[in-house]
Amino acid sequence: MPEINKNNAHLFDGYTFEQKVKLYEALTDLYSENKRNLFDSLVQNRTRHVCVMVEDIYQSHNASAVLRSCDCFGVQDVHVVEQHNKFCPNSEVAMGSNKWVDVYKYKQTLDAYDTLRKKGYQIIATTPHENDSMIGQLDITKPTCLVFGTELTGLTQEAIDHADGYVKIPMYGFTESFNISVCAALSLFSVTERMRQLNVNWQMTEEEQLTLKLYWSLQVIKDGTNVLRTVKERIGL
Amino acid sequence: MPEINKNNAHLFDGYTFEQKVKLYEALTDLYSENKRNLFDSLVQNRTRHVCVMVEDIYQSHNASAVLRSCDCFGVQDVHVVEQHNKFCPNSEVAMGSNKWVDVYKYKQTLDAYDTLRKKGYQIIATTPHENDSMIGQLDITKPTCLVFGTELTGLTQEAIDHADGYVKIPMYGFTESFNISVCAALSLFSVTERMRQLNVNWQMTEEEQLTLKLYWSLQVIKDGTNVLRTVKERIGL
Repeated sequence: MPEINKNNAHLFDGYTFEQKVKLYEALTDLYSENKRNLFDSLVQNRTRHVCVMVEDIYQSHNASAVLRSCDCFGVQDVHVVEQHNKFCPNSEVAMGSNKWVDVYKYKQTLDAYDTLRKKGYQIIATTPHENDSMIGQLDITKPTCLVFGTELTGLTQEAIDHADGYVKIPMYGFTESFNISVCAALSLFSVTERMRQLNVNWQMTEEEQLTLKLYWSLQVIKDGTNVLRTVKERIGL
Repeated sequence: MPEINKNNAHLFDGYTFEQKVKLYEALTDLYSENKRNLFDSLVQNRTRHVCVMVEDIYQSHNASAVLRSCDCFGVQDVHVVEQHNKFCPNSEVAMGSNKWVDVYKYKQTLDAYDTLRKKGYQIIATTPHENDSMIGQLDITKPTCLVFGTELTGLTQEAIDHADGYVKIPMYGFTESFNISVCAALSLFSVTERMRQLNVNWQMTEEEQLTLKLYWSLQVIKDGTNVLRTVKERIGL
C-alpha cells in the first residue's frame, strides 16, 4: 500500500523551478500582500528534518492537537497510520492547522516505516516503558521521525520492534504517562528547539519551500484547485 | 479572602518534626513497603521552587491535565482562582494526580498574587501576546509562579497588569496559540528541566517532605482521616 498524500501537492509535480516561480507570482496576485509576507516568513521555519508519525489515533481532538503542535513547531510532515481507526481531526481544536501541514496516510505501520527509511529518516518510538534515552538526549543530527501510539494501548508491538530507537519524556510523578497530544507537543518542543540551534540543514530546500508556498496559496484562494487550473492555462503551463 | 488549602495538610500542623516522624512510622505500617519506597523516592523530586496558578479554567479536562502535568514534573503546588468558574478536575484525565498535588483556592487573582509574593515568588504570566521573554530564557533562580489564563480569553487584564514578568512559548506556525493544557505542560517541562540543573535549593526541606509524605499516606489508607485520628491517639499525639 503506497502512501497517499492528501495535500494535493502533486498538483505541482512535473514543473521546473522556473515554472513554479511563474505560477507562484500569478497566484500571489490573488491574495493579500500580508498573506504572501506571512508565507515567506513562515516557510523559513518549516522543516522536514523532523517529522511525526501517529498510529491509529481514534480521538479526533488528539489528532487535531498533534497537527496543531506540528504547525506551531514548524514540522511540515505528519504520517498517519489508519489500520483500525480513521484519522479525523476536529477543526475547532486543529484551528485550521490541517491546512498548513502535509498529512500522509498509510494502512500499515511497516509501510510507513519503509517509506520513511527510504527517505533517510531514523525512526524513534516514544514510549514511557522503554528506557533508551530521554527526549532531550536524542541525537537529532540525522533526519528523525518521532512515532506516537494510540491513546489507550500506546504503540503496537510491531511499531516498537521495528523502530531504530526509543525515547521518553522525563517524569517525576505518580502519573506515569501523558496524554498523546501533550506527549507529542513536549517531544516536538524539545527536539525542534535543539534542531534550530544545530549545524545541520534542517530547513527545506528552496524548491520545497516554493512548492509549499504554492500549496499554501491554494488554501487561501477560494475554490483554489479550479483557480489553479485557470491560472495554469493563462500563463501557458 | 484567604487561601483555602484543600489538601488537609493542616491535619499535621502544630506537630514537631520528631512527632511527625513518629506519626509517619505508625502510618507506614498500614500500607505496603512498595508504596513507602515510592513516596520516599518521588518526594526527592518534588518542588515548590516552581508553582502554577490558573485563572478560571472552565473545562474540567483542562483543569485535570494541568494537575497531571504538575504531578508529572514534580510541581507540588497549584493555585486556583475561581472568580467565575469552579475548578473541577475530571478524574479520568487527571489519572489520580489531584491526590498528589496541593491545590489552593482563591476567589480573586490579586489575593493569590499577594499570597504568592509574600512567599517570595516572582509571578510570571504566560501569554502569546507579550514579548518579554521566551520560556527557555526565563530566569528561574528565584522561586517562580507561572500563571495561565482561561481557555477562550486568556489571562485577565488584572493578571497581566500585576505580573512581574511575561513569557511565551516559541511558535513558528500559522496557529498562534496552544491549548491551555499543552501550554502548561510545555512551560513546566522547560522550566523544571532547567531548574533541576540549577545550583538552587529547589527541593523541599526535610520537614516539608515529611509532611507531604504524611499527606500522601492518607491518600492510600482507606478512610485515612479517621485512621489518622486513631493513630494519633494510640501514639499519644
